[in-house]
Amino acid sequence: MNGKFVTVEGCDGVGKSTQVRLLRERLSKEGVDAVFTREPGGTDIAEKIRAVILDADNSDMDALTELFLYEASRCQHTNQVIKSALDAGKLVVCDRYIDSTLAYQGYGRGLDVDMIKTLNRWAMGGVEIDLTLFLDVNSADGFSRKGGASDGDRMEREKSDFYERVYNGFIAVANEEKRFVRVDASGTKYETHEKLYAELKSRGMLK
Amino acid sequence: MNGKFVTVEGCDGVGKSTQVRLLRERLSKEGVDAVFTREPGGTDIAEKIRAVILDADNSDMDALTELFLYEASRCQHTNQVIKSALDAGKLVVCDRYIDSTLAYQGYGRGLDVDMIKTLNRWAMGGVEIDLTLFLDVNSADGFSRKGGASDGDRMEREKSDFYERVYNGFIAVANEEKRFVRVDASGTKYETHEKLYAELKSRGMLK
Repeated sequence: MNGKFVTVEGCDGVGKSTQVRLLRERLSKEGVDAVFTREPGGTDIAEKIRAVILDADNSDMDALTELFLYEASRCQHTNQVIKSALDAGKLVVCDRYIDSTLAYQGYGRGLDVDMIKTLNRWAMGGVEIDLTLFLDVNSADGFSRKGGASDGDRMEREKSDFYERVYNGFIAVANEEKRFVRVDASGTKYETHEKLYAELKSRGMLK
Repeated sequence: MNGKFVTVEGCDGVGKSTQVRLLRERLSKEGVDAVFTREPGGTDIAEKIRAVILDADNSDMDALTELFLYEASRCQHTNQVIKSALDAGKLVVCDRYIDSTLAYQGYGRGLDVDMIKTLNRWAMGGVEIDLTLFLDVNSADGFSRKGGASDGDRMEREKSDFYERVYNGFIAVANEEKRFVRVDASGTKYETHEKLYAELKSRGMLK
C-alpha cells in the first residue's frame, strides 16, 4: 500500500465534522489526491448497516449487537473503499474509525476493551493507520459545547459521565499508540484547522 | 437457566423448515411450553439485520462483513428471546444457530474457524446448547433436492461445491461436539419427524 491513512477522532461537540470539511476544501484546492470518508458508513452496504444502527430503538439494542454492527460496517468500508484507495497511492481521511469504537463501546459502554481490539484488527484486515488526529477538548468543555448537562439530573449526569468515560478512553489510546496525536481544539475553528494541517504536513501525509 | 435449548441444523434443501413446523405442531398439541425461533432473525432488530444479509443487491458483501452481521443478529436474538425463555424454564427450539455459521461462513466461505468459534462464544453470552439435531442428507442429494443453484436470495445462489464444503463443515462439528446428533433425513418427512421427536424424548428435552 502506497497511500497514507489518516483518521480523525474526537468526542461529540468538538467540531470534528467542521474540521474534516475544512481539510477537504484545503486539500482539494491544493490538488491533493485524497479520499474523504466516514464511519459508520462509506459504502452502500455500510450505509444500510448504519441505518440499522441509527434507526433501531437504542433502548432495545444490546451493546454487543451494536459493536458487531459497527465492525460489519467497518469491514465492508475498509475492503471496498479504504484498501483500494491506499493501493492507488491516495491519501485517505476517515471521520471516526477504530478508536471511536474503543472509546464509545469500550470505555463508554463498558464492553471488554481487548475484545474490541481483536474485532477491530479482524475488521481492518491488515490495513494500518498512519496518523490519528484527535481533536482534544477537555471533557467538561466538550460536553458543554455540545449543549450537554445543565443541572445534573439523573439522565444528564449519566450522559455527562458517559462523555467523560469516552474522553478518557481516547486518552488511553493516546498513551498506547504512537500514531495518535492530540491536537488542542479549544481555539477557533481556523486555529484548529491550521494545527491539523500543520500536523498532516510535518508528518509526511501530504506528498 | 432451567429450560432446554435445542438447535436444528442442516444444509439447504433437507426439509429443515418442514421438520421444524412438524415439531412445533406436535409439541403444541402435547402442551409443551416451547418457543420456536430462527436465525438470522427472531427479534425486530435481528430481522432488520437479516434483511441486510439476505438482500440480493448486496452481492459485493465481504464474507467477514456477513459474519459480523450474523453475530450481531445472534447476539440480539440470544439476549432478547433465548435467554429469557430458558430462564423461564421453557424449551427453546432454534432453526439454525452457531453451527450454521461455522459450516457456511467457516467451511463454506473459508473464514477462519477459530475466529468464528470465538465470535459465536461472545455472541452467546453464556448460553449453552443442550442438543443439536442435524438433518443429515448427503450433500449431493441435498443440493439436488433444493433444485440446484436457484435465483433466490443471496445465500441460495451458491453452487454445489459450496454446499459440499458446508456439509463437511457440519460433519466436522458432529465429530467435535457431544450435543450434536446426526439424524438420517433421507426418508419421508414423517419418518424423519418421528426420528427427531424420538431424539427429543430420549434425550430428556421434553419434560
